[in-house]
Amino acid sequence: MHPTTQMLENARERVTFPIEELTKLIYVNEEIYETFMKAQKIIANEPTIRNHPDYHNWSRKQQIIKSYEKLRIMHQHFNLANAVHWAPLLSIFQGTTPTAVSFAMTVPALRFLGTDEQFNLWGPKFLTMEIVAAYAQTEIGHGSDVQNLETTATYDPQSNDFILHTPSVSAVKFWPGELGFLSNYALVYAKLIFNGKNKGVHPFMVQIRDNFTHKTLKGVTVGDIGPKLGYSTKDNGFLAFDNYRIPLNSMLARYVRIENGQFSRHGNEKISYASMMVSRQLIIFIYPRMAAQALTVAIRYSITRQQFTNDKGVENSVIEYQTQQDKLLPRLATCYGMIFTGIRIMQLVDDNFHRVQKKDFSTLQQSHAILSAIKAYSSQWVVDTTEWCRLSCGGHGYAHYSGIPAAYFDTAPNVTLEGENQVMYLQVARYLLKVLQYAEKNPEKVPFYFSFVLQIKDTLNNKDLSNINTQLGYLLKLSLTIQLIQVGKRIKDLMNTGKTFQQVWNEHVGIHLLSLAQRYAEYFIYLVFQEYISNANSSVKDILQSLCDLYCVQTILDNSSTLIESGQITQEQLKSLNELKIELFTKIKPQAIGLVEAFNFNDNALRTCIGCHDGKPYEYIYDWATKENSVNKVPQAVIDLMGTKIKPKL
Amino acid sequence: MHPTTQMLENARERVTFPIEELTKLIYVNEEIYETFMKAQKIIANEPTIRNHPDYHNWSRKQQIIKSYEKLRIMHQHFNLANAVHWAPLLSIFQGTTPTAVSFAMTVPALRFLGTDEQFNLWGPKFLTMEIVAAYAQTEIGHGSDVQNLETTATYDPQSNDFILHTPSVSAVKFWPGELGFLSNYALVYAKLIFNGKNKGVHPFMVQIRDNFTHKTLKGVTVGDIGPKLGYSTKDNGFLAFDNYRIPLNSMLARYVRIENGQFSRHGNEKISYASMMVSRQLIIFIYPRMAAQALTVAIRYSITRQQFTNDKGVENSVIEYQTQQDKLLPRLATCYGMIFTGIRIMQLVDDNFHRVQKKDFSTLQQSHAILSAIKAYSSQWVVDTTEWCRLSCGGHGYAHYSGIPAAYFDTAPNVTLEGENQVMYLQVARYLLKVLQYAEKNPEKVPFYFSFVLQIKDTLNNKDLSNINTQLGYLLKLSLTIQLIQVGKRIKDLMNTGKTFQQVWNEHVGIHLLSLAQRYAEYFIYLVFQEYISNANSSVKDILQSLCDLYCVQTILDNSSTLIESGQITQEQLKSLNELKIELFTKIKPQAIGLVEAFNFNDNALRTCIGCHDGKPYEYIYDWATKENSVNKVPQAVIDLMGTKIKPKL
Repeated sequence: MHPTTQMLENARERVTFPIEELTKLIYVNEEIYETFMKAQKIIANEPTIRNHPDYHNWSRKQQIIKSYEKLRIMHQHFNLANAVHWAPLLSIFQGTTPTAVSFAMTVPALRFLGTDEQFNLWGPKFLTMEIVAAYAQTEIGHGSDVQNLETTATYDPQSNDFILHTPSVSAVKFWPGELGFLSNYALVYAKLIFNGKNKGVHPFMVQIRDNFTHKTLKGVTVGDIGPKLGYSTKDNGFLAFDNYRIPLNSMLARYVRIENGQFSRHGNEKISYASMMVSRQLIIFIYPRMAAQALTVAIRYSITRQQFTNDKGVENSVIEYQTQQDKLLPRLATCYGMIFTGIRIMQLVDDNFHRVQKKDFSTLQQSHAILSAIKAYSSQWVVDTTEWCRLSCGGHGYAHYSGIPAAYFDTAPNVTLEGENQVMYLQVARYLLKVLQYAEKNPEKVPFYFSFVLQIKDTLNNKDLSNINTQLGYLLKLSLTIQLIQVGKRIKDLMNTGKTFQQVWNEHVGIHLLSLAQRYAEYFIYLVFQEYISNANSSVKDILQSLCDLYCVQTILDNSSTLIESGQITQEQLKSLNELKIELFTKIKPQAIGLVEAFNFNDNALRTCIGCHDGKPYEYIYDWATKENSVNKVPQAVIDLMGTKIKPKL
Repeated sequence: MHPTTQMLENARERVTFPIEELTKLIYVNEEIYETFMKAQKIIANEPTIRNHPDYHNWSRKQQIIKSYEKLRIMHQHFNLANAVHWAPLLSIFQGTTPTAVSFAMTVPALRFLGTDEQFNLWGPKFLTMEIVAAYAQTEIGHGSDVQNLETTATYDPQSNDFILHTPSVSAVKFWPGELGFLSNYALVYAKLIFNGKNKGVHPFMVQIRDNFTHKTLKGVTVGDIGPKLGYSTKDNGFLAFDNYRIPLNSMLARYVRIENGQFSRHGNEKISYASMMVSRQLIIFIYPRMAAQALTVAIRYSITRQQFTNDKGVENSVIEYQTQQDKLLPRLATCYGMIFTGIRIMQLVDDNFHRVQKKDFSTLQQSHAILSAIKAYSSQWVVDTTEWCRLSCGGHGYAHYSGIPAAYFDTAPNVTLEGENQVMYLQVARYLLKVLQYAEKNPEKVPFYFSFVLQIKDTLNNKDLSNINTQLGYLLKLSLTIQLIQVGKRIKDLMNTGKTFQQVWNEHVGIHLLSLAQRYAEYFIYLVFQEYISNANSSVKDILQSLCDLYCVQTILDNSSTLIESGQITQEQLKSLNELKIELFTKIKPQAIGLVEAFNFNDNALRTCIGCHDGKPYEYIYDWATKENSVNKVPQAVIDLMGTKIKPKL
């Protein structure tokens, strides 16, 4: 057996829990698990769609063409219109999945905001991809602030239709995915001008390209916005209209309508949140799984990579170094919390949608707040984690052959898209302050996942921290509680000095609000983690508890200043927490290989040559570099440029 | 005037210090400043070498060919053999500068480790680029641990030459820049086997490609290692030898020699550090300037970007939000400290080299420790800063057209190369503990920049923090001092439990050692910052002091736990520091545009369309996307793939 294969096998033998029990938790249910495993296998075995080592040498044009070829084959294998099928694929597909936006954003918006007739008119055509439609909201000059979008849809009573127009450069639609090349339709958010009055921003289903020739229609300017940090196959696009006429039926009309020349509103407009929720929920569900891929590579590599000789004259596996454990183990622990949270939120959002469809909006705001908090926290955590995994692999982590740089590229946009994280956090903070305000008078209105607001006195007075290492969840709650009270007081104090609420909010408490919302996200993840442990098979309760403890203790230590500043914990207690962390390292380190292999990614899905199932990192690196690297077919033009002398002027 | 141009002009008018005084400090001296300004202009005005908006759509092969074309023209304009000329260019050149490694690493190594005859033999040929030589040290399986390199150079007494050999895959040279295509020579580090005995690792100057045809020589396997996170034009390479004979004179022979069949050592081998110092020093000098570019873009964009309406119904510039200030202003402040530190270190290293050449090694170790600390701290800071700048620009920051993603790509490797940061920090910690050990008995031996070790008692007892906001430098020193003492004690305690020093070091104190070294780096930067303020023109002393204060207060707050845990500062004092930070925001915000424009980058150097001198971010974005984006010439093959229906199996 190859020595590095042996190292991995030895590590596997030391794992003491049944890996498949964790796999079950990770993949929610049989259907998702089976689909995912089947997809992994198909992608690995079919040469036209398997991940290609040379991919990152290609031009964007080559990558885009390849991704469309793959799209067709993938759609034939798996029905990409079904999120259960394609969502987990996102993490194992090289490049981004075309049509994901169309299916994850435009279709839900059509379902929630369109009438049944409208849905029946367009919906079925999505399934056969006769319609692929971008979600065209963001403009060059306007992102998060939807109410200030500039694109206009002016109702023309003469012809009973709309004139769609882009009045300035800053009004050009910019960034929507799949708009650049792929879409023939777009759901365009525009300010409705009715009888000269601004009736607010509404969505319009607009054809932009011919169904047969795929040529851009007259009055439309559309194309790709250029190269980005990652997402190179995603044709994020621009879109401008020059007094472009669209029929009356274009406006999604479940909640606003123009009939007989009259404009009217129907029902609860809060629903406009609902379609954004689908894409945010998917971000939370999918992307921690890309972090899991990076962790799989990093843990396997850390077991097979040796550096510096130990007391016995043998080179140490780098996983034996405390500094390496510190990079990877807390993140591995948190990854489990993130994945569980992704699943729990999928359930919460589903439940909320069922209510909304029955016109019960009682869980809408809390779902929105939880989603916003976790979307922001999870997406930043994923990016940071892929980065730390990369760094933990030394030089080879910087190579695309490690598989990790692409994970960074393609998770980085989630911090900004579908609700910029900072804007999300500010909304969460606002919601928390609102709950605080009504909690005392209307405790029954406080939603379950916010019930810490009802326990404030109890939380602040329960100071029995004699055994602090068993009080980790309480410490997270305490930290959140203190932050909430302090921010509330700070705002009140500043307003008492004569400042307006908006001034205080924008200019004086921003960093405290972000911190408050982050503490909430951390506490929520802890709650979900505990739910999972309670319901888990007894054979994995112990390892899950260790992971949850490490998640908590790392989180507390990273943000200890609130607890210390407010005099809630002492120097001795902090020391005890630090020791607990190191104890947990000792406990989790031998299980690490099992914990990453429970994610069950095959080598093709990991796109790696340093973290394969049978090790051999150096053999695979050298193999790819010598056999799969197209730039090594050096063109004569390059050779001619070299090897001749240059005499500088200076 | 365009409204966004007007916004920038208004901001410029509010600046109250003379910008050119800071520019002088940033560019060290007239020669560097003039060369840099001239180069910026030439690159911007010559079409073949100016930065190209479409660059990031290209394949690596296209990018590489372009970079060689540019190389020739650049070398004719500026003598690239002269670091003063090319070093500042690195930050404004699209893609990495070819031959930088050859000039910055191989030539200095040849100078320090080769005999005068050897230098005269090869050195002049570098200037005309007849020789371009990679620095081939790292192997696939061996990075930081040079003593465990596997490549062998076996002395053959019969023929009086060496046989260079790669005994295994893990021994293949891997990563050296300019090795993949460009170099015809390589400075190969190999284990010298002399009469069957291992005589340690030494450098050999080896020809690998033909001087005229540029074909690989027999016995050599060489090529490019594949695509990476960034550095796409840098041909990092692999190199393997199959019993390849090289002449006796290949071995650099200033300190080791084989004469008349005898092996001998001469002088102080510590000098082998010295050549690594050049490249580390350049990293410290150059790359904070790339962070300065990202900051220039981010600050200008934050002034012109508006979002959400304020009390008066006007959209706010995002720079007005505290959260935005928090992302950018502390980093802008630190950037000045980093640039000054880069210059100071260049001077320290120069001074050390002059001594070394006179066989005075008295400043070698301290220089090595300072360089290691700052190389690690500065490189990580640069990467983090480009990332925060990107995030501060919202969606547009993710586009390559912002200019920021490439800054991230091309600074990221510095964390790992030329001494992996963590390994660097551990060496610094080891040096600090050594100084602590001898300080009491030999205080005169303690180098100037480590004199805090002589003031330990004084530091711990000086607790007059009644006006804490004026004691920022003291707090950094205090934090460092406590960390040093605690780590020293922890190691002693653990060894008293029977563990070996190596066990303790690797498995029990790693994270504390990293933290100690980081606190040292922070304190060093503060010392340099203060030196600069003392010597600065009185017209900029005030703004520089504000920057230094913000650097300090942010650094203290980021790592407050040591001070709090050890009971050195109170809750009230921490609150006061937080308030000071916000006060400094108010003071620095109106000066921010002047502070970034003192760096004096032209638009081409910034490769940006959202941070240009005259603003107009949206106009330029739209212009580039519609006119400069080659993927918008959609090939018919792509169109054919779209617009047709696909029926999924499932």
